[in-house]
Amino acid sequence: MPAAIDAFVKQNQPRFLEELKEFIRIPSISTLPQHTPDIARAAAFVAAQLGAAGMENIQIVPTAKHPLVYADWLHAPGKPTVLCYGHYDVQPADPLELWVTPPFEPAERDGNLYARGSSDDKGQMYIHIKAVEALRAVSGRLPVNIRFLIEGEEEVGGASITRYVAENPGRLAADVALVSDTAMYADGIPTLCIGLRGLIYMEVAARGAGRDLHSGLYGGAAPNAIYGLIEVLAKAKNADGVIQIPGIYDAVEEPAPAELQSWRGLPFDEREFLAREVGASTLTGEPDRGVLERVWSRPTFEVHGIAGGFTGAGSKTVIPAQATAKVSFRLVPKQDPDRVVAAFREWVRAHAPKGISTEIRVLNASPGVVVNPDHPAVRVAARAFSEVFGKETVFIRSGGSIPVVGDFARHLHIPTVLMGFGLPDDGLHSPNEKYKIQNYYLGILTVAHFLQQYGGLG
Amino acid sequence: MPAAIDAFVKQNQPRFLEELKEFIRIPSISTLPQHTPDIARAAAFVAAQLGAAGMENIQIVPTAKHPLVYADWLHAPGKPTVLCYGHYDVQPADPLELWVTPPFEPAERDGNLYARGSSDDKGQMYIHIKAVEALRAVSGRLPVNIRFLIEGEEEVGGASITRYVAENPGRLAADVALVSDTAMYADGIPTLCIGLRGLIYMEVAARGAGRDLHSGLYGGAAPNAIYGLIEVLAKAKNADGVIQIPGIYDAVEEPAPAELQSWRGLPFDEREFLAREVGASTLTGEPDRGVLERVWSRPTFEVHGIAGGFTGAGSKTVIPAQATAKVSFRLVPKQDPDRVVAAFREWVRAHAPKGISTEIRVLNASPGVVVNPDHPAVRVAARAFSEVFGKETVFIRSGGSIPVVGDFARHLHIPTVLMGFGLPDDGLHSPNEKYKIQNYYLGILTVAHFLQQYGGLG
Repeated sequence: MPAAIDAFVKQNQPRFLEELKEFIRIPSISTLPQHTPDIARAAAFVAAQLGAAGMENIQIVPTAKHPLVYADWLHAPGKPTVLCYGHYDVQPADPLELWVTPPFEPAERDGNLYARGSSDDKGQMYIHIKAVEALRAVSGRLPVNIRFLIEGEEEVGGASITRYVAENPGRLAADVALVSDTAMYADGIPTLCIGLRGLIYMEVAARGAGRDLHSGLYGGAAPNAIYGLIEVLAKAKNADGVIQIPGIYDAVEEPAPAELQSWRGLPFDEREFLAREVGASTLTGEPDRGVLERVWSRPTFEVHGIAGGFTGAGSKTVIPAQATAKVSFRLVPKQDPDRVVAAFREWVRAHAPKGISTEIRVLNASPGVVVNPDHPAVRVAARAFSEVFGKETVFIRSGGSIPVVGDFARHLHIPTVLMGFGLPDDGLHSPNEKYKIQNYYLGILTVAHFLQQYGGLG
Repeated sequence: MPAAIDAFVKQNQPRFLEELKEFIRIPSISTLPQHTPDIARAAAFVAAQLGAAGMENIQIVPTAKHPLVYADWLHAPGKPTVLCYGHYDVQPADPLELWVTPPFEPAERDGNLYARGSSDDKGQMYIHIKAVEALRAVSGRLPVNIRFLIEGEEEVGGASITRYVAENPGRLAADVALVSDTAMYADGIPTLCIGLRGLIYMEVAARGAGRDLHSGLYGGAAPNAIYGLIEVLAKAKNADGVIQIPGIYDAVEEPAPAELQSWRGLPFDEREFLAREVGASTLTGEPDRGVLERVWSRPTFEVHGIAGGFTGAGSKTVIPAQATAKVSFRLVPKQDPDRVVAAFREWVRAHAPKGISTEIRVLNASPGVVVNPDHPAVRVAARAFSEVFGKETVFIRSGGSIPVVGDFARHLHIPTVLMGFGLPDDGLHSPNEKYKIQNYYLGILTVAHFLQQYGGLG
């Protein structure tokens, strides 16, 4: 059987690549209204391909924004059910002038496919469809029950899928979810992600005077909304990046010694990370913790944007009446988003300077996620990944957040296998996004082997 | 003589008002390129009116931007020379929808003239021209030598006049300058301003990472340019508004006890100031000093604008690579702008957080000004003001800055009589700017009496 699958995938590589290119050529940018017809085309493409792979009950599910695509194949009684997730929408491509070849004309160079969405996430979600197709082609059936749920709003917050998952737990019943929307730790290293940070994203608005005031006539006696805002925010962390809000670290757990030990075994060059990726004069953060620990298993507080007062060319001497900042906490597993929001609200209220009123608006809040590496699906996934790539699978975390994984945990009560085939330097959301073509083929094999072996457990 | 002047002014009030309206109807907005023809019309209007008032050597002086208007009358040998300054340009009028009557159609309501530029500064500078006309009409000559220098860039930084004054000290030789571009302390209270704060306006830019980074993947280890910037700026003042930069207060002098005493005698209602003018929940600043002291005789540090990272709708989890703030110091007399800039640069360098580089750009820097209240011109001005308004003249300072006064001091070595006829609630730069018509007429009388009496000293 594995040999037959391998042969089928090998034989069909050129077609699989052409299909992926066709998919990528649809500029399904979810944030730009003028691309709404492309969103519809991309959803239809996915639905058609699911049909071609033998999936059933295919539905393009309308939502408040962009449609979901659902499909299933449920003819493996007694076998587990796998819920395959991915997204067909992509980020905008600008700045266009920085692309070597046009973003929606996929181009092969050095074994990579260059295009917007090649890695994030069209090239990865398409792996699932082709793995199912290969399994059906070889044996006429699937080794497990399968559901697909593909969204078109991942790059714009994913509100519709969150709602759909919450409202349709019965329809989505499964034993495990499979998500390919992350990167391998490095090329050639099979990698399962078993931890994601959560995210609380907020706007903090500050108000001082009733209107913008002349800084000559009122400066010295009138509150300044920008200054009030930055006075508060600057107190949120100390110089080492340690968050100063009481209670924030209460629920933060240290990674198990074995997990920490395994991180130390990963190839990581701090100097290269600084020079190639961060590009600053130095790294920052908690000095007694390694870099991977800081970005994987520690909470953070960041200011993402700030605006207030006069920012045009030249000078205007205004005491601004209002100012706003976008801020976030990244959370680690066990931290309760609601408690963190409450602690932050209370702290801001207590630290707002004289004459400054503040308002906090929570845009979204999702908890961190850990996957138990001893879950059968995870163990099988690790084995399949190792077999195909010929190397021991490593378990890592990611500092990022995939809210839908939290939705699956909360509403479907299932863990997620985070099996990504991207690479850290794929340039997601950037010009010249790329995807290693060889890993696309190996990904199809890996997912097929995983499903095969996971079905064999039943 | 005074009686004849008074009669002439009284007789001509309707014409003086019509002329001012004609002047105001020219929308000479200096910051909007589409109004460049209006700027030229306004300059020509001023030149023509100076000619009608009997001034000589009238010149419209081209500059890099908007023209200056120069004129003189120098036939009073042995008498002092007065340099009259004003500006014919105005601020933009938007938001237009907030005006009760159109901004460039002067409308009389409740004894006020409502229009852009009515108080700032057309209605005030025109007082000088009409005072000169009245003196010439009554006695066929002027009691002093007079020069006029009227600019069209006051609302956009005044670079051209600064240059012209620096380059033409001989041509502008005078004993004292007369500026009517300030407000009386309150209606009915003749007021001379004898102190202005200086201003240093700067941009502070901060850089962290080489590019915007994903806050999930790098948050905890990468420097954040916004956070670095606000960490520094938030340390610049303590909670009471006291500037924390070493040496800043070294040259700051306390006002003389008599001056402080006279401020305490001014009608000032702190609650009304807070409620009507500031509109915040409370006033701020140095708690052991009165409000007038805080805004007139103490230096300040303000952030006027700040920008960085993502500020659109929704959420984007970026660690911003750069951020910028517009900041200023208001200086009191004796503070050296160069030393304050140097101290600030050094302090920012010392306090920039790990991984953050900063750059400071000085947009302009002018020192504070004090005028000696015992200068003969100031004493005569106070007397004339008292006579016309029937009340004791008060001496105040202003927290604002009029850079040209510094230019006159630096290059012409002359003091300036700051004799303003506006009112604090005239709404300069705001919709429904107004000017009290009665004070326009009294202002013409006051300036005529001042020139008459100042000439009588010689």
